[in-house]
Amino acid sequence: MLKKSCLAAVALILSQTSVAKTAAQPTASSVINSASAQEWRIVDADNILKITLPTGSAYIELNPLLAPKHAENIKQLARDGFYKGLSVYRFVEGFVAQGGDASGKKAIKNASKSLPAEFYLTTATALNITELDITDGYAPLTGFLKGFAVAQNEAQTQTWQVHCNGVFAMARDNNINSGGTEFYVTIGHGPRYLDRNITVFGRVLEGMEHFNRLSRTPIEGELFNPIADIHVLADIAKHDTSQFKVLKTDSNAFKSLIKARQNRSEEWFVETPDYVDVCGMPIPTKRLKS
Amino acid sequence: MLKKSCLAAVALILSQTSVAKTAAQPTASSVINSASAQEWRIVDADNILKITLPTGSAYIELNPLLAPKHAENIKQLARDGFYKGLSVYRFVEGFVAQGGDASGKKAIKNASKSLPAEFYLTTATALNITELDITDGYAPLTGFLKGFAVAQNEAQTQTWQVHCNGVFAMARDNNINSGGTEFYVTIGHGPRYLDRNITVFGRVLEGMEHFNRLSRTPIEGELFNPIADIHVLADIAKHDTSQFKVLKTDSNAFKSLIKARQNRSEEWFVETPDYVDVCGMPIPTKRLKS
Repeated sequence: MLKKSCLAAVALILSQTSVAKTAAQPTASSVINSASAQEWRIVDADNILKITLPTGSAYIELNPLLAPKHAENIKQLARDGFYKGLSVYRFVEGFVAQGGDASGKKAIKNASKSLPAEFYLTTATALNITELDITDGYAPLTGFLKGFAVAQNEAQTQTWQVHCNGVFAMARDNNINSGGTEFYVTIGHGPRYLDRNITVFGRVLEGMEHFNRLSRTPIEGELFNPIADIHVLADIAKHDTSQFKVLKTDSNAFKSLIKARQNRSEEWFVETPDYVDVCGMPIPTKRLKS
Repeated sequence: MLKKSCLAAVALILSQTSVAKTAAQPTASSVINSASAQEWRIVDADNILKITLPTGSAYIELNPLLAPKHAENIKQLARDGFYKGLSVYRFVEGFVAQGGDASGKKAIKNASKSLPAEFYLTTATALNITELDITDGYAPLTGFLKGFAVAQNEAQTQTWQVHCNGVFAMARDNNINSGGTEFYVTIGHGPRYLDRNITVFGRVLEGMEHFNRLSRTPIEGELFNPIADIHVLADIAKHDTSQFKVLKTDSNAFKSLIKARQNRSEEWFVETPDYVDVCGMPIPTKRLKS
C-alpha cells in the first residue's frame, strides 16, 4: 500500500507528470504532450557544443542572437581542438563549474583568447519576447526569446540571457573584455546578480548531471576533471547523430505552459502561487535521436 | 599573465571573495569576516542529521520551530536505524534527490510512518523575521528566521521555510498527511511553487556534493544509492566531533550581508541589482571541528 502511495508521491513530487484532473487549467505535462509538431523546433547541430566529461557528454545550445561573438569564437576554439585535454578546474557547490585552460598557457590558433563583452544585445526595435509577469526583483521585464530565459531594461533596448541553473557563460577578470576561453555552467539556484556583468551565451540541453557529478577534490592543489574534447555537434555527425527538439518559446503551447506552471492543477497541489519566476520555467527539451 | 588574470577571474566569479575596494558598501566576504563571535551560533548537534552517502556524509540542520513533529520523527527514525541500508532511489536533475524506503515495506519501530502536515507554522504574535525587500512573486513577505529562509502570508500569521536549493523536506502522496519517512533534498533552482504544499523541515549545512554526485542510473529498473546510515550527530559524538556555526540571521552582520549582496561593491561588478531573492542569500555556515 505505502509502496504505491510512496511511489505515487515520488512521481508527483519528482516530475509533476500526474494526469490532469478535470480542471479548467491543464497540467504542465498535458500542455507539453499536446503541443503540435509545429510548436517544436529542431535545434541546429551547428549551434550545439558537445562537451565530453568523465561521466558522459553534455550538449549545450549556443545563443548567437544575444552573444554572436562568443558563440562563434567557442565554436572556433572547439574546431581548433583548444579544449582537448583541458579540464573543469574549479567547482563551487551550488554556484558554478568552470573549465578551460587553468594554466593560461595553451596557444590559440584561429580563435580569440579574449572578446569584447556581450553582456546584452542592444536593439532599437522590439524583440518577440514571450513576457512573464513583471514581478521580478532583478529586472524590469523577464521572459523568453528563442528558447532562452531573458530579461530587459525598462526601455526594452537591452536584452540579456539571465543566469538560471544550467546556463553556459564566459568567465572574465576585472576587465569586462577579458573573457574568451574559460567557460562556466551554473549549478544550483540561478545567480541572477551576475546578469549584465558577464556574457551568458547558451544553456545545457542535456547532461547537467555530468557537470554536477564532477569531482570537487583537488589533487596536489589542482582540481582536474578532464575534458576529453569539445566539438560542434554538426562536425561529428558521422559519430554522433544526437538530435534535440525544444518547445518554441513563442508558441501557444509554451504560453499555456507558463499558465500551467503559475497555477498547478494537479490534484497533489493544495496551494498554487499564480506566479512563476523566469528561472522556474524549464524549457521543454527532448532528445529525438541518440 | 593570463594565468593570474584567469585565476583572479575564477576567484572573483566563483567565490566573490575579492578584497573590498574603497567603497561605501562593504563586500559580502568582508561582512562575514568581520562578524563578531556573538553574531554566530553553534548549531546544536542534537538538531543535526548526518546522512552517509556513497561519496561522503551530508549534515542537515533540522527546523523544529517550523516543523516540530517532522524534526522529532526523523530523529526517532534515525535512532531506530530505519534508514540503515535504504537508499536515495529517485534523482531528478535540477529538482530533487529523494531517499528512504522505496519498497514501503520496512517496519517502523518507535516513530511514525506518516505525520500531520506541517506546511507552515501558525502564530498569533509576530515572529522575529529578518525581512527582505517585498518583491517576491511567490509570497507577500520573505526573510530569515533562526537560520532558515522563510516566507509569510499577508497577515503574517503563517510562516513556512521556502524551497531554496539544499532544503530538506518530506515527500507525500495526494494525502497531505501521508509524509513521514521519504525525505528529499532540493537540487538546482529553488522550486518555490512547492511552498506550503509540503513540509520543509531543514537544510543542508554541509555535503550537498554528496547528493549532487549520486548516480542517476537505475540498475534493473531501480535506482539504488545506498544510505549507509542516518544518525543524530549528538548520538555519535564519540566518533564524529563535527561542529558547525551559522551566522545568526537576526544579527547586524547578517543584515549588512543582505545589503552587501543586494549591491555588490567588488571591483569586478559593473551592474548591481539592489536586490536579492530569498533563495539567493546563502546563510554563512562554517565547520569548526572535523
